[in-house]
Amino acid sequence: MARMQKKQRQQHLIEKIQSSPFLTDEELARLLDVSIQTIRLDRLELGIPELRERTKQMAEEAQTKIKAIDKAEIVGELIDLDLGKSGISMMTVTPDMVFERTRVARAYYVFSQANSLALAIIDAPAAVTGVANIKYKTPIRVGEKLVAKAEVVKQRGNKYFIWVKTRNEKQEVFRAKFIMVSLD
Amino acid sequence: MARMQKKQRQQHLIEKIQSSPFLTDEELARLLDVSIQTIRLDRLELGIPELRERTKQMAEEAQTKIKAIDKAEIVGELIDLDLGKSGISMMTVTPDMVFERTRVARAYYVFSQANSLALAIIDAPAAVTGVANIKYKTPIRVGEKLVAKAEVVKQRGNKYFIWVKTRNEKQEVFRAKFIMVSLD
Repeated sequence: MARMQKKQRQQHLIEKIQSSPFLTDEELARLLDVSIQTIRLDRLELGIPELRERTKQMAEEAQTKIKAIDKAEIVGELIDLDLGKSGISMMTVTPDMVFERTRVARAYYVFSQANSLALAIIDAPAAVTGVANIKYKTPIRVGEKLVAKAEVVKQRGNKYFIWVKTRNEKQEVFRAKFIMVSLD
Repeated sequence: MARMQKKQRQQHLIEKIQSSPFLTDEELARLLDVSIQTIRLDRLELGIPELRERTKQMAEEAQTKIKAIDKAEIVGELIDLDLGKSGISMMTVTPDMVFERTRVARAYYVFSQANSLALAIIDAPAAVTGVANIKYKTPIRVGEKLVAKAEVVKQRGNKYFIWVKTRNEKQEVFRAKFIMVSLD
């Protein structure tokens, strides 16, 4: 019975990490209602690296696939990429990114994370931004870890319709719809 | 008769400079169909400083009026400001602003010039960006001098509806509609 529970638990762990690869051991422990120690042992048995190493591996793999933009030109860190389809990047808000007066992140940092991610997922040698409709849903502050997810929702000729949604630890803070145009 | 022509010409010159303060002497000469030398002498007589000095004076005056943003946080140079109503800024595209691959200016530089100008014209102690609908009309390249003009088109409570249009020397290259929200 205990053996069965362990198998099930490990299956759950694998599924959780596949769908949300950036969960910490603490978060996984809470979700599966077990101790952090159990999560660590399960990961060891299953050969799943710790969060930092998982992120690094995904980032390295993602960065080899980019075509339309130079990887150094991406704002934030690209950590997952399914070229032509979707991508994920992470950016931590540092003190130089906020306005002196309001301590709120300048709009263009969040925009540029989303915009450079939208470029990165395009399966073409080069592309430019055509249109962007963007919404800031809540002020973003120092220390927040912003995870942006981009998805190609439609492609017509050389036009790519790309949606980007950015979340902090708690909620969606920003979303953008881009029309990007690939160049020959 | 010659005297009359001169008076008329100087009146035209004053009007031109008031409506388009950033015309060069060369451009003014072409518009009024006289020599550059004539423009220079007219400016001297009328006590109108040369373009560089005019820009500097306007910029200094504009920068004393800003409320919602720190002047160091403006992207580009603010050169005119009618607080609560409109503003103008200039930015020259430098090589570090373009993508390696396409030599096209990164979307967020143009966005941030427009966005920080939109903040600068708000007559409130602090404000943040809510929504932006933006359109890039043509690729922007190194050396282009971008003049952004922002205008408050509507205000409802703490919401400011601001349009920004950015031109290079020849045409409109970008436009944005912002909804900015002032904070207490």
